[in-house]
Amino acid sequence: MSEYLYPINDILFSLRSVAKTERLTPYLEDSVDNDLLEAILGEAGKLAEQVIAPINASGDKEGSRVENGEVIEAKGFKEAFKAYSEGGWIGLSGDPEYGGQGLPSYVATAVNEGVQAANLAFSLCPLLSLGAIEAISLHASAELKNLYLPKMLAGEWAGTMNLTEPAAGSDLAAIACKATADGDVFRIKGQKIFITWGDHQMSDNIIHLVLARLPNAPDGVKGISLFIVPKFILDDLGKPAHRNDVQVVSVEHKMGIHASPTCVMSFGDKEGAVGYLVGQENEGIKAMFTMMNNARQGVGLQGLAISERAYQQALAYAKERKQGMNAERTARAAIIEHPDVLRMLMTMKSQIDAMRSLIYVAAVENDMSHLASGDDKKHAIARTALYTPIVKGWITEQAQEITSLAVQVHGGMGFIEETGVAQHARDARILPIYEGTNGIQAIDLIGRKLHSDKGAAMMSLLADIEAEVAEWQTSSVSAYADKVKAVLDQAKMATETCLTAMQKNPVLGTGLAYSYMMLMGYLVGAWLQVRALHAAQNDEKLDESQKSSWEHSVAFYCDHVLPRALGHIHSIMFGSTTVDNLNKNVFNR
Amino acid sequence: MSEYLYPINDILFSLRSVAKTERLTPYLEDSVDNDLLEAILGEAGKLAEQVIAPINASGDKEGSRVENGEVIEAKGFKEAFKAYSEGGWIGLSGDPEYGGQGLPSYVATAVNEGVQAANLAFSLCPLLSLGAIEAISLHASAELKNLYLPKMLAGEWAGTMNLTEPAAGSDLAAIACKATADGDVFRIKGQKIFITWGDHQMSDNIIHLVLARLPNAPDGVKGISLFIVPKFILDDLGKPAHRNDVQVVSVEHKMGIHASPTCVMSFGDKEGAVGYLVGQENEGIKAMFTMMNNARQGVGLQGLAISERAYQQALAYAKERKQGMNAERTARAAIIEHPDVLRMLMTMKSQIDAMRSLIYVAAVENDMSHLASGDDKKHAIARTALYTPIVKGWITEQAQEITSLAVQVHGGMGFIEETGVAQHARDARILPIYEGTNGIQAIDLIGRKLHSDKGAAMMSLLADIEAEVAEWQTSSVSAYADKVKAVLDQAKMATETCLTAMQKNPVLGTGLAYSYMMLMGYLVGAWLQVRALHAAQNDEKLDESQKSSWEHSVAFYCDHVLPRALGHIHSIMFGSTTVDNLNKNVFNR
Repeated sequence: MSEYLYPINDILFSLRSVAKTERLTPYLEDSVDNDLLEAILGEAGKLAEQVIAPINASGDKEGSRVENGEVIEAKGFKEAFKAYSEGGWIGLSGDPEYGGQGLPSYVATAVNEGVQAANLAFSLCPLLSLGAIEAISLHASAELKNLYLPKMLAGEWAGTMNLTEPAAGSDLAAIACKATADGDVFRIKGQKIFITWGDHQMSDNIIHLVLARLPNAPDGVKGISLFIVPKFILDDLGKPAHRNDVQVVSVEHKMGIHASPTCVMSFGDKEGAVGYLVGQENEGIKAMFTMMNNARQGVGLQGLAISERAYQQALAYAKERKQGMNAERTARAAIIEHPDVLRMLMTMKSQIDAMRSLIYVAAVENDMSHLASGDDKKHAIARTALYTPIVKGWITEQAQEITSLAVQVHGGMGFIEETGVAQHARDARILPIYEGTNGIQAIDLIGRKLHSDKGAAMMSLLADIEAEVAEWQTSSVSAYADKVKAVLDQAKMATETCLTAMQKNPVLGTGLAYSYMMLMGYLVGAWLQVRALHAAQNDEKLDESQKSSWEHSVAFYCDHVLPRALGHIHSIMFGSTTVDNLNKNVFNR
Repeated sequence: MSEYLYPINDILFSLRSVAKTERLTPYLEDSVDNDLLEAILGEAGKLAEQVIAPINASGDKEGSRVENGEVIEAKGFKEAFKAYSEGGWIGLSGDPEYGGQGLPSYVATAVNEGVQAANLAFSLCPLLSLGAIEAISLHASAELKNLYLPKMLAGEWAGTMNLTEPAAGSDLAAIACKATADGDVFRIKGQKIFITWGDHQMSDNIIHLVLARLPNAPDGVKGISLFIVPKFILDDLGKPAHRNDVQVVSVEHKMGIHASPTCVMSFGDKEGAVGYLVGQENEGIKAMFTMMNNARQGVGLQGLAISERAYQQALAYAKERKQGMNAERTARAAIIEHPDVLRMLMTMKSQIDAMRSLIYVAAVENDMSHLASGDDKKHAIARTALYTPIVKGWITEQAQEITSLAVQVHGGMGFIEETGVAQHARDARILPIYEGTNGIQAIDLIGRKLHSDKGAAMMSLLADIEAEVAEWQTSSVSAYADKVKAVLDQAKMATETCLTAMQKNPVLGTGLAYSYMMLMGYLVGAWLQVRALHAAQNDEKLDESQKSSWEHSVAFYCDHVLPRALGHIHSIMFGSTTVDNLNKNVFNR
């Protein structure tokens, strides 16, 4: 089992030189200076490496279980969660009014990269808590905020998100869970499935955020409201006191993230679970959507994180494992000396570099969308909305390939569970599914993001790429800029084709959505790779070997990863009729 | 859990109309007529569907274990193996002199597609037995053949292949297991790992084929000999009598194929395991290589089989699961009505069609290589050698994508083990690894197959494709033929680039190997897809709906799968320097 090393230098470089965190400085009361950022990430790295990573494999093996109606999590998780909470990590970017530290959320993103890489199953508990915190912060009354936020930001209470029901997965309009008024509170009844960390013993209370329907609510998504349903109802002093009518029914037996209990939750088997309305009646979906960018970018981050973890393990094995002879045939070679193994490792590394750049660029843009004002804010909101499905969809698709390549580098040992690398591939397999499947992300990109503003936000992004690439064409990175430009020109045509297809038929047009999402991922990845190289070449903090490492990564990306965009462009430009013509009957041979 | 349906019509169509089994007629004493073939495959289908498929999920859950030094396989496997043996399936293409039925091996391939799809873990036991049977048939003395083959062909005794050791995986030159003469026999000592079905209770004896080194043997692969080491040494009547000095040490805990015991085997802990030399001393590797085409094509077949199984399950789920509204927004839709789901299903289906065509084309060519004579035989040997790494490498890569897409179509349910589809993805993950990793396949293609005859065999294949495509360009499939031709022209240039790179430096050149293998897979797949469509349009047995289904598959393949070749062509044409420049130090950032 290899150790995980938090890649602090790559993260700092991405933040400063690619995502350009200085963009936020005008909007921050206390800007995050370099020393502070390094200190925070240094501590986060230690926690990830020393506390959270060591229980990853054991958690996978042990999983979690239900005993007497309570979920018992894997050994060591409670202690790790305590260390995590006491370190103040949950409240990092929380509202200082409720005990948060008020840092921009990119800092939390950088911290979470380490936590997620160290232990994806563990990381979901604080991540879902953060989602619940955000929902409450943005939409709940001051009274509810005062009651719940301080404990949640301190990590004393955890949070969950309860959306999915057996008949309502991608289609939230089908939610059937019921809420009825009962004096000042509501009574919630219904079953929820796929509830991540729906129960556990790591915190004194669990605050469930639950989507449910009030009586006479409109059909569809416009009739769904959001409720706080605590596991323990608070007493007059705000302390968890009475067990609420919510029960875990079972935990799922999954392909991966075994240590993360995925729960079937039953609300209101007896008198109805006590719930408190968050925001306005029938506006629950809107509340969910305001959290969507963070949550989806969070899953993209998981794709980066687990890819980095798997890559580190593959690299370590490739340096150590001897098979075959070196090129001079004078000695046995470590497999990293074989060109095909170098190809696999650089396929991982160069994509991880691009993914990381995109993660932090999108995170800083997301901060801009909250912190800036006026046109800057509007622009940042539109750009964030555009990045989000690419971050979630494209990065988690890449994570499938990268974690699979990490298995492959190990040969037969990769297939043996004790090696530990198969776990990363199994864990990563959930990422294209949850928080909106990648099909949903692709449709979001081509529909809600491209089609609905007639391509304005996308054209603005493509124009920014073009302008930056044009600057580089007379610089030391001109050779790579030319390669990006060649694909960019075709991507503009593909964008027009997608717009036309969506205008013609917004349902059929979504047949091109996946190819378009992947195309944009590869293109944006290439753009940011060249930006990273340009910055690296002009960065005095990097030595020649580090600069050279960047050049290899970017050259490989441009020659061996970016060309995949050609296939997607071809699909879009020449293949829309083929997709339009499909229907369920053609599978009946 | 969906049921598996043996796709007999697609298989018969592939065999007759794409692989053209009539090519073998001149060389067969008793040709296999249509009625006989249909009858055989009909029975095989029943066995796969009714006996072997039902124990697939239970076998995955239960796995196998070691008790008192013996492997206990999952429940129901012994009975299934008995049914399989008694049906005469193992001896289907075996030598009639020893009780086989002497059918061409493509019949066995078609049977095995069903067995492997039904239960990959189970199928490995007869598959490895067949490998052992082949080694003995081709290389052992008449005495050994008489002793072992009849019982093995009858399925009363199973067989295994013992190659890998802890330090000798891809690199067989590192084999250290020792053999020393002891009167008429040899004594074998050493440890073997990753031995598939190395022990079990399903047969009366297990015949291990073991690679080991004699004293004073030359170093490397030229000093390795092949031995028969039976679990039970035979008495004078040829009956299993005395326990040999071979023990299973443990079974591995793997990502997939749980029911297939992957054993650590210890030979000669006491007095040395009794072994019998197969073929000449120091020629064990040569014996292994003569089996390589069959074994590697067999793993490619597994890639097709498990893809078909996963696809069937995804298709069934997509027809049944309702989410969202139909295009007219008048009713809830089965997810198969959504364009992005149709895209996923056709990505699976069109590739499976291409993969199946390639499997049976290569299988018939393999039969030709054994049955034909003179120049025909030579040509078939070269063509088979060329197909083999593409069959193994490309098809098993596609199987990763297809089984993963099958999970994706299921959404959250796909990640839950009880759904059964995750098992296919986990099981499939071994395919790019064993029987020569796909990196080794790619290097075999660009080195041993392309470079070593200066491209002659490959040029011959490309010329055949070009000639057939030219014929189609004036037919009803001309639009698709044009698309294949466009890629073919570029593939010829990429082939020249690879040849030049290999001539310049046969080690560095292998950095292009993987892209070249994938390119050839997509191209050959497209060629055979168009051949299939051309045949389907002229096939009176197919109705209009079946013909239309073929057209959708081929159109989708040409527009959405074949374009991936463009990326690989670009990698090869413009990216060789980028790969050449890689070395282990560039990963040290």
